[in-house]
Parts: sequence; structure tokens; C-alpha cells
Amino acid sequence: MASEIVILRLGHRLPRDERISTHVALVARAFGAKHIIYTGQHDSGLESSVLRVGASWGGNTTITYEKSHSKVISQFKKEGFTVVHLTMYGMPITEKIEEIKRKEKLLIIVGGEAVPGEVYQNADFNIAVTSQPHSEVAALAIMLDRIIDGKELTRGFDEFFKGKTRIKPNERGKGFY
Amino acid sequence: MASEIVILRLGHRLPRDERISTHVALVARAFGAKHIIYTGQHDSGLESSVLRVGASWGGNTTITYEKSHSKVISQFKKEGFTVVHLTMYGMPITEKIEEIKRKEKLLIIVGGEAVPGEVYQNADFNIAVTSQPHSEVAALAIMLDRIIDGKELTRGFDEFFKGKTRIKPNERGKGFY
Repeated sequence: MASEIVILRLGHRLPRDERISTHVALVARAFGAKHIIYTGQHDSGLESSVLRVGASWGGNTTITYEKSHSKVISQFKKEGFTVVHLTMYGMPITEKIEEIKRKEKLLIIVGGEAVPGEVYQNADFNIAVTSQPHSEVAALAIMLDRIIDGKELTRGFDEFFKGKTRIKPNERGKGFY
Repeated sequence: MASEIVILRLGHRLPRDERISTHVALVARAFGAKHIIYTGQHDSGLESSVLRVGASWGGNTTITYEKSHSKVISQFKKEGFTVVHLTMYGMPITEKIEEIKRKEKLLIIVGGEAVPGEVYQNADFNIAVTSQPHSEVAALAIMLDRIIDGKELTRGFDEFFKGKTRIKPNERGKGFY
């Protein structure tokens, strides 16, 4: 299983992507990514949302802004990361997942509006989570779920976060430990 | 496997939920749901987004607005649907999925801000896709993925939609059939 997963969210726009990018970042955290990088417009609200969730719910997922996605991609490639670009135009996840899972370090790119052609070219894998239009949030969740073998869904993963706030699963209401 | 899956999205608010609810609806479609119902504010833009995607990409997922979620829930229960409410406060999906998968007809509720207690009470299952805060879009995707055994990820599922527009999976760019 990948020991280090970093997410690169492309082309964040304000206010349009405020909530979608927050969902992308929170999925990244909840499904085991270590770090989130985003490009596009700088957004301190997005960053503080992620840090606020971490402060209460645990884990140590970090988020930083970068101007140039090309620089991020080439830098991570130099550091030995395999680059996976999520796009509905890519190859079905089912055909590539075993190969991707064997990689030690993964940079997973989540597109925004109009992803430049060089991203498709520079990615080691262009992967489709269905070849239908739906949601980058869903695509990222399914990708990470497959990479970490559904571990995020078990109670054990919760303990991994060691948060001050921890939910006690409940048949009919709300509860905390 | 469930033969009929309907999604109920609660408390849609404009403009705040515009994109999130659209992502919820498109995930519902791409992951095999037959019909989407939403409550909250009526939004013809949301409805036309779903219909526009269907017109081009195929399938026959429909979407309707309802004023009262309670009425929807009790009506579907009467029609023999099992009601599954997605909430991070619920029971881990891994512990209930086998039981849920055996049900013929499912109404899956995707919450909004401040879900009323009666929804927790009236649901047959309250299910957590992780007990961490992340995204209703991701939670729905993982839930449907598990219900339909990952079928949405294979090329065969694409043929199910029989859309005018169909992507030809590509290692490095974009292509269509």
C-alpha cells in the first residue's frame, strides 16, 4: 500500500469552488492523504477549514497553496512520486488499480475546469472513475478507497486520527466518545 | 443487488448548495440510481443539469422536487423501500452493507445542514461512510459503489447508459467513440 499520498487540486476559483474544494480536501484527509496542495486562487478560508477539522478531529493532514502545478508535478516526480491524474477521459480504475497500489508514493491530481494537456502528458496514469461526468469529490473518494483497501471505513481508521472529537457509532442518533 | 435505488437529497439551499447538490445528483446517476428527489428550495437549474447530462450521456435518471421529506419517506416505506440515511453519526458501512445489499428497493437519504431527528428515527439504517467529517458526495459514491459491487467502474456499465456521447478510455488524452 502507498505509504505517502499527496493530493494536488488544480485551478481553485473563488467563490465558485469554495465548497467543492473543501469537500475534496476533507475527503483527502478522511481517506488517508497526508498533504493537500492546491493551485488557482489563494484561499485562506479553504486552508483554515482543513486545519480546523484537523484540530478537532485529529490527524495531521496539511494544506498549502502553490502557483504553478507544473512545478509541483515535476518536483514530486523527482522525489519519486507516481503521478495519477483523475479524469473521466482516462483508463478505467479497475484496469490500473493493482499497478497503482504497488507504488510507494502517490501524487493524485484532481482537476478543475479545463485541465491543460500537459497534465495528461506528464501524469504516469490518467484514471477514470467511471467514464461518465459526475464529481471530482466522488472520484477522489473512490480512488483513495481502492488504494487503501477500504481501511477508512473501519473503526480502526478512526483511532488513527486520535482526535479530541470522536463519534461513537449509533443506530438511531448522535453520540461521541 | 438492489433492483431500484432512489436518492433523497434533503434541504437544498440556493445558491449555497448549487454545485454540491448537482454533484450529488450526477453521482446518483453515474452510480446507478434511478430517480433523485430533493427537498429545500426548488431549483430548476439543478433539474436541467441532470436532464442535460442524461440527454447527452444516456440513461434515464429522473429528478423531482418535493416539499416534505417526511411525506416522501413514509410513502416510500409504504411501497416497500428500505430507508438508508447517510450520516457520519451512524453505524459503519462495513457492518451493515451485506444486510443493505440484500434489500430489493432502497431509498438513500443524503443530508443537508441540520437533519431533523425524525430522519434518524424513521430510517431503517443510519450509515456512516467513515465517522469523520468529509462530504455527502463522497459518502453517496462509496455507498452506491458498495451496493452495486463496483459495477459502475467497469466499461460494461458505460454500455448500460447507451448515451450519444461515450468516452473511449485513453492513456494520455481525450477520445470518444
